[in-house]
Amino acid sequence: MVKIEHDERIDYLPNQKLKIIQSPTVFSFSMDAVLLAKFCYLPIQKGKVVDLCSGNGVIPLLISERSKAKIVGIEIQDRLYDMALRNVKLNNLEEQVHFFHEDIKSVVPKLEKGHFDVVTCNPPYFKTVTEKEWNENKHFAIARHEIYCSLEDVIRISSDLVKQKGKVALVHRPERLIDIISLMQKYQIEPKRIQFIHPKKEKEANILLIEGIKNGNSGVKILEPILVYNNEGTYTEHFKEIYFG
Amino acid sequence: MVKIEHDERIDYLPNQKLKIIQSPTVFSFSMDAVLLAKFCYLPIQKGKVVDLCSGNGVIPLLISERSKAKIVGIEIQDRLYDMALRNVKLNNLEEQVHFFHEDIKSVVPKLEKGHFDVVTCNPPYFKTVTEKEWNENKHFAIARHEIYCSLEDVIRISSDLVKQKGKVALVHRPERLIDIISLMQKYQIEPKRIQFIHPKKEKEANILLIEGIKNGNSGVKILEPILVYNNEGTYTEHFKEIYFG
Repeated sequence: MVKIEHDERIDYLPNQKLKIIQSPTVFSFSMDAVLLAKFCYLPIQKGKVVDLCSGNGVIPLLISERSKAKIVGIEIQDRLYDMALRNVKLNNLEEQVHFFHEDIKSVVPKLEKGHFDVVTCNPPYFKTVTEKEWNENKHFAIARHEIYCSLEDVIRISSDLVKQKGKVALVHRPERLIDIISLMQKYQIEPKRIQFIHPKKEKEANILLIEGIKNGNSGVKILEPILVYNNEGTYTEHFKEIYFG
Repeated sequence: MVKIEHDERIDYLPNQKLKIIQSPTVFSFSMDAVLLAKFCYLPIQKGKVVDLCSGNGVIPLLISERSKAKIVGIEIQDRLYDMALRNVKLNNLEEQVHFFHEDIKSVVPKLEKGHFDVVTCNPPYFKTVTEKEWNENKHFAIARHEIYCSLEDVIRISSDLVKQKGKVALVHRPERLIDIISLMQKYQIEPKRIQFIHPKKEKEANILLIEGIKNGNSGVKILEPILVYNNEGTYTEHFKEIYFG
């Protein structure tokens, strides 16, 4: 029996198989996290995956559907870490998925350097937080803004954790593409696959998926664009296939 | 009266207004050049634009339709330079468009540093040339391979020629995106607008359009994707609008 707090509810993940405890006042998973979990390369039968800035654990849960690898999630906020633990239990994933209540900046050497086949992360997107945002909801502020970890921290630590030729996959805002590429190169992650999500076909991209290989060769692929909505305002078939598939 | 060599013919550009002398054995304009000429920012009423690696002058010709700026084209191959000169005459553009028969690497100080509002370039795409390619057709080999100028030359010289906050627009292969971004940053060109062209909606991008600003602020936009063909194998409406518009 998994405990549910007063402000929480149990939702289904888009595939309608896994369940997830979340809270509109603390943290709910985003489309971005789901897209990253579908986009990233994963070893099928065995291996080790680590997800940084895990929140309530949505990415480790979704990844468990695609891979038998051992999955570790790292989350700094105790309330979200607690939700993540209960989400593991709720889905009977105690054998495969483990969470650490840690600041990613001190996770090495508790997690061994160069140990993971894949690192995933849906990091905070925004550089600065206003006092108003901070005061209104600290949970949201920490999840959305670079308060406890910067983009450089995320990429440096990803590079530390991943093995040679292992993969690092991030979701972020397209406007940060140049920063992400520069930092990946600084920390020996060669970008190899990029995919952009556009809300509609005539709109600029609003989500960036990017995967690099530790000390990989140069040469990047730009995958087919994902358009979320048709002109009628309904999901495109392509998006539905990816998101709910 | 403009002279036409035995292996040449006069074609229309896609807008059906401008004419262009080209030769299937020496040089024909590509879709890539047309897309760059449509993509790049241009001052409307006045200013100065320079196009590097101009070939038979397709980009200067097309740009003349969108801008009253003075346009300079640089071409190293005498045969192509000669075609470019005749293309200017053929379209009565002698007042607006001028060509220099130069190696772009020695174009500064003949052209003044920091003088241009916009630099465009459809450079050679491929790093190395085989002996077979070189022997079979030197015109093609020089236009397609980094023989007389490397990607770094193109970006360094673009940065030299463009004024502060001026724009540099390139077309290239998407697999070189990381190199292009790194080199732009090395030479103080901040990438600001990127657009990918995909042959069909479910395919990887095969053309990259990128525009940066000299000493611009960070933050890049990924414009809507351009899909060339429908599933029926005909041009999409979006592509037709851009390409023939």
